[in-house]
Amino acid sequence: MTSDKNIAETTGEQGKSKKAAKKEAKEAAKAAKKEEKKAAVDVAQAEEVDYSAGCYGNAVMNQSQEKLERSIIRVEDIGLSHIESKIWTRGRLHTSRAKGKQCFFLLRQQQSTVQCLLAVSESISKAFVKFTAGITKESVIDVEGIVRSVPQKIEGATQQDVELHVTQVWVVSAAEPRLPLQIEDASRPEEEKEGELAIRVNQETRLDNRVLDLRTPTNQAIFRIQAAVCRLFREALDQRKFVEIHTPKIISAASEGGANVFTVSYFKGSAYLAQSPQLYKQMAIAADFEKVYTIGAVFRAEDSNTHRHLTEFVGLDLEMAFHSHYHEVLDTIGSVLTEVFRGLQNQCMQEIATVNRQFPSEPFTFLDPPLRLEFPEGVEMLRQAGEQIGDEDDLSTPMEKLLGRLVKAKYGTDFYILDKYPLAVRPFYTMPDPKNKKYSNSYDIFMRGEEIMSGAQRIHDPEFLSERARHHNIDLSKIKAYIDSFRYGCPPHAGGGIGMERVAMLFLGLDNIRKTSMFPRDPKRITP
Amino acid sequence: MTSDKNIAETTGEQGKSKKAAKKEAKEAAKAAKKEEKKAAVDVAQAEEVDYSAGCYGNAVMNQSQEKLERSIIRVEDIGLSHIESKIWTRGRLHTSRAKGKQCFFLLRQQQSTVQCLLAVSESISKAFVKFTAGITKESVIDVEGIVRSVPQKIEGATQQDVELHVTQVWVVSAAEPRLPLQIEDASRPEEEKEGELAIRVNQETRLDNRVLDLRTPTNQAIFRIQAAVCRLFREALDQRKFVEIHTPKIISAASEGGANVFTVSYFKGSAYLAQSPQLYKQMAIAADFEKVYTIGAVFRAEDSNTHRHLTEFVGLDLEMAFHSHYHEVLDTIGSVLTEVFRGLQNQCMQEIATVNRQFPSEPFTFLDPPLRLEFPEGVEMLRQAGEQIGDEDDLSTPMEKLLGRLVKAKYGTDFYILDKYPLAVRPFYTMPDPKNKKYSNSYDIFMRGEEIMSGAQRIHDPEFLSERARHHNIDLSKIKAYIDSFRYGCPPHAGGGIGMERVAMLFLGLDNIRKTSMFPRDPKRITP
Repeated sequence: MTSDKNIAETTGEQGKSKKAAKKEAKEAAKAAKKEEKKAAVDVAQAEEVDYSAGCYGNAVMNQSQEKLERSIIRVEDIGLSHIESKIWTRGRLHTSRAKGKQCFFLLRQQQSTVQCLLAVSESISKAFVKFTAGITKESVIDVEGIVRSVPQKIEGATQQDVELHVTQVWVVSAAEPRLPLQIEDASRPEEEKEGELAIRVNQETRLDNRVLDLRTPTNQAIFRIQAAVCRLFREALDQRKFVEIHTPKIISAASEGGANVFTVSYFKGSAYLAQSPQLYKQMAIAADFEKVYTIGAVFRAEDSNTHRHLTEFVGLDLEMAFHSHYHEVLDTIGSVLTEVFRGLQNQCMQEIATVNRQFPSEPFTFLDPPLRLEFPEGVEMLRQAGEQIGDEDDLSTPMEKLLGRLVKAKYGTDFYILDKYPLAVRPFYTMPDPKNKKYSNSYDIFMRGEEIMSGAQRIHDPEFLSERARHHNIDLSKIKAYIDSFRYGCPPHAGGGIGMERVAMLFLGLDNIRKTSMFPRDPKRITP
Repeated sequence: MTSDKNIAETTGEQGKSKKAAKKEAKEAAKAAKKEEKKAAVDVAQAEEVDYSAGCYGNAVMNQSQEKLERSIIRVEDIGLSHIESKIWTRGRLHTSRAKGKQCFFLLRQQQSTVQCLLAVSESISKAFVKFTAGITKESVIDVEGIVRSVPQKIEGATQQDVELHVTQVWVVSAAEPRLPLQIEDASRPEEEKEGELAIRVNQETRLDNRVLDLRTPTNQAIFRIQAAVCRLFREALDQRKFVEIHTPKIISAASEGGANVFTVSYFKGSAYLAQSPQLYKQMAIAADFEKVYTIGAVFRAEDSNTHRHLTEFVGLDLEMAFHSHYHEVLDTIGSVLTEVFRGLQNQCMQEIATVNRQFPSEPFTFLDPPLRLEFPEGVEMLRQAGEQIGDEDDLSTPMEKLLGRLVKAKYGTDFYILDKYPLAVRPFYTMPDPKNKKYSNSYDIFMRGEEIMSGAQRIHDPEFLSERARHHNIDLSKIKAYIDSFRYGCPPHAGGGIGMERVAMLFLGLDNIRKTSMFPRDPKRITP
């Protein structure tokens, strides 16, 4: 039709005044168009020929048949600068609503949506509208359309100033008609509001159908925040001249005696999955790398079915030689984490807001430099709050939570370091306090009253290490390789391991670690 | 002595002219010193009292007894700016040589060394020199000394313009007297030179004593280069808006049929170790992340005892949705790797030179944009070189090596992409070429004639995927979860997995992948 119109115009321009010619041409074009359209409609009605054919349908499966030069605008970028332009975009059919001869639909790409509309007209056939109305939710579609401004902001879309008047729709990848969960339901805020739908999606359904669940704006945000946690952690350590290393997950012996480790069949023998990269980080220190970190999978065969335990998680581990005092290391860890939090607040504002809309929480607070309390101070605070706890007892999980609230009330921080744990509750390789044998040079770090890191100055002297192992009734033959690592000189060092999923969960104030693990593993789940 | 001198000075100042008082005081101090020294020597000779006592010895085991304000200069920083200053430094006793009343030793910190000397004098006792001469190699020591310039450059140390005249030596952590390997031997260049020692350390000895082996300058450099590979890879992808994800290593089913996977005991059941994060990367694409990457452990239960196979290695994996053609992805991979190589050459010059001194190799060459050949072109080059190979045969390892040499000779690059592999030699999920059914939209990437990456456009249509799986005689029930991932709409996508250790090995022209894995795992080794 467009080309016909051009032909009419060209013809009309010959030998006449430009204005008259233009007018005539316009009318001729109009008439021609009308006739054509009438004919098309007649034919469509008579023989069901579709005058929108070629403008919609199921695209042939993409096998990289050709390189299209077509430029594709991202949904988040569609705005006033495109007014009256014809553009191509790709996204998912989020929701659609057919109403008489019209079809409205929302096209979603990641966290952005744009309203699209299609109405039967001279160029849009009934069949086109019907086809579009029948596209299943979550199908990936290519849409061509003209960007138009709207009289009032569209509340239901992220692109509120414009809508797309559709000229072509092609289904790139169709979703099955029945979805095991609806993205809208999975995206609904936790808090119920009067007059709003109460449908929520429970966690098991989400995790069973993670490919759908991960499409919600909240999950898109959570895993970008998680990526930022790792990036900021690495940047802070790279700046401090730490070297990234990679440690083996398959190990020949369980360094802490063999409890809670998974066994692997290894050719004709067997091996274990590492519970921590600690031995290898320490070997890297004994091998002169001075400051190392590693980010990788850590495995715990604990049958703990709680909101904060996973059998496989991502460890942010670091180890560092120091000159005179392990606080050199602890101060480094504190400032690294402070930098991570500040980076998240500065760089992920939008993502944090998105998560908060679905799962409201108080903003995470921290001090710079971070608060460091000694274990006896924590015990004293708990006792003043009425808890019964011995000097050398470890803190129970409820006590940790309570202490978190007490610290928050007293110091105004969700983040603090608890230093100098009782020696009796720490592993054999922990360096005892030089002044008080009941305590040790070890620490835990807390966010919102939950532990995210455990660490210590490690014993770097092989004789003393053997002595401490014997004191713990550990079979020395089983940890020989560990002890031998220190026989050729090793500087004093300290370190710790941080649970990446816990950092993300607690920073965002979420209630379950499965929300910050893309494909969580627990005693009852190893799929998908 | 110092405090006595001060007392003398203070006394002398009372009631006299300042100058006179000073002079007198000085003389008094001198006299006192002389007498004291004489007395000390007398006593030392008579009763063996040591006038250097308190300046050397075995330090008390560091338990973080105190925070020393002492500033410690790194060996690499000791230079002309410190001339005549008294400094503290910490390092390992690299080598030492006692000669009469003198002791020379080299102090090493990571890749730097400084010459230290100690000679019996008024302030340095025989016992001090004897103690120092007896310190075992590789012990970690604190050294205090005065930095002095030297008449001619010291060839044997990295700090060639200065030496340290030692005033204190404290052993922080002693090495056992017998070392299973000598750092000097382990650092010696591979190529034997006439008149030089021919002692080398074989690989098994190195790996058995990795804590010592990793202290060589070459290993210090290799693992810094390896860290740079990962950092540059992430930076290139972050810039391109990829999202870093973490995929589980424990999986419930082996996606490619169950060969070559390690089995894990998982509570009362069993599970497997992931051979690749591919399924999870693809799920992230189906979940709208569009561009993802992950760096993590990958496990292969292959009984391959070669120079380039490990049972556990670090995968640099990426996956990306594309609009019309998988070359959008392949071009991205090519430019990311080119950026990694350029970054290594620019940022790791010194480390590369260090490695080359011990293991000489030709500098790594690449083109920008990288060379992309199609499989039939490669086959043709091989045939012209006299190889017999069918159109749909895969390349053998020797053929890959040969093709690498042919490509290098013809195009001058050690890095190239071989595109469009025969469909028959690729996994079931590989997208067939739309124009020629014998080929596929898949590729390998080579460095110095060895494969570092395999990848492809994946089939994103669940029906076609099932059809291809049946064609490969794969039990559909075993890959149901994989196929179901694509039932709710999935954009066309492609990706690949790069072996991190191979990239480091081949970039540096090393001969064995165990040289670029800090703690390598192969069918015969899971220790240390």
